[in-house]
Amino acid sequence: MQDQVAQLAFVTIASVLEQAYFSMQVIWARRKYKISPPNTSGHPAFDRVLRAQLNCTEYLPIFLSTLWVAGIFFHQGLAALCGLLYLYARYKYFHGYAASALLRLWPMYFSASFLWLLTGLSLLGLLDFFLRSYCGVHIKQNWLMG
Amino acid sequence: MQDQVAQLAFVTIASVLEQAYFSMQVIWARRKYKISPPNTSGHPAFDRVLRAQLNCTEYLPIFLSTLWVAGIFFHQGLAALCGLLYLYARYKYFHGYAASALLRLWPMYFSASFLWLLTGLSLLGLLDFFLRSYCGVHIKQNWLMG
Amino acid sequence: MQDQVAQLAFVTIASVLEQAYFSMQVIWARRKYKISPPNTSGHPAFDRVLRAQLNCTEYLPIFLSTLWVAGIFFHQGLAALCGLLYLYARYKYFHGYAASALLRLWPMYFSASFLWLLTGLSLLGLLDFFLRSYCGVHIKQNWLMG
Repeated sequence: MQDQVAQLAFVTIASVLEQAYFSMQVIWARRKYKISPPNTSGHPAFDRVLRAQLNCTEYLPIFLSTLWVAGIFFHQGLAALCGLLYLYARYKYFHGYAASALLRLWPMYFSASFLWLLTGLSLLGLLDFFLRSYCGVHIKQNWLMG
Repeated sequence: MQDQVAQLAFVTIASVLEQAYFSMQVIWARRKYKISPPNTSGHPAFDRVLRAQLNCTEYLPIFLSTLWVAGIFFHQGLAALCGLLYLYARYKYFHGYAASALLRLWPMYFSASFLWLLTGLSLLGLLDFFLRSYCGVHIKQNWLMG
Repeated sequence: MQDQVAQLAFVTIASVLEQAYFSMQVIWARRKYKISPPNTSGHPAFDRVLRAQLNCTEYLPIFLSTLWVAGIFFHQGLAALCGLLYLYARYKYFHGYAASALLRLWPMYFSASFLWLLTGLSLLGLLDFFLRSYCGVHIKQNWLMG
């Protein structure tokens, strides 16, 4: 089983480390603007950092779901590459949003495009699997054979 | 490995697409009520749409966990079916909550009942596995054999 | 496949049941302080319970990711044990935070240390896998052989 998921597992742990980095940014912003838990608001700059972190957290399960399904049913290496580009886009998004609400926009679209790509690859992989299993049609093979 | 999880993977991608649909509803509500990020409040109707989306997001990891454990340890097809019914209940919940806080109630109980069902199936499947592995007791087989 | 993940699946379902317990505490706090959805604030004691539950929810995907990667690539039993200790720390965190913002601190550090441990085990397991697959180096075996 390890062979089929090692690269996906690596990207998963990379995403966990990125989330840890975002959480630390929130803690530092809490100290800088003197906003103690359970308060979640108090200064526009802190609000943006917190919203950026929460948005990344919200999308993590969606990202990991599409990463793993695309990796298992379409192609592991391609899914892992899309995953790394998604994490890079999220890094840009976080620091863009921390600077201003406007600067979050292009990395947001950039990260969303990789999510849609992973979703598309997942659907293609599943379509291929179900056609192969239930109808005996081999799409991928036909592509490769020309 | 694909055979054992293809239906679970399909329901997973369906849940991702449903979440994408909910996120778009929030974006449309932001435009309609003119509430720009990082603000998360401002009009009761917007607050309900945002809370509905957040609640669905919160439950996504729990739903996916029980879906996959029930599917791998109890029965894939049955888990996938419960999963689809859960996603239907969540759709009803979202639009109920968007209309009024009261209308969210019955689909909330409806969706919770499928989560509990998936949790129960997971526990039964795991119990069967551990009894089989460590005590040599075959519950499922005994049921089928009568 | 079941053999390699049964203990991880068990800890996963335990974490789902713990989340269900936390969610019920929020519902009870809503009733006690008469704060109806979609409101998410209104009394400091309620705010703390809600923040405690949200924090546990936020970390659930991160916890499950590291649990499974550590379990599949390093050692299932050790990962499951760290997982159970993490869940115990989260239980202490929840009730600490419900009592006061200060009492959340030590179980927060305690739970974080298990998350870091699981992340470290994941990275070690993946490093071992990639060295074995691409460089032919067997770290784990060398350890065992002395």
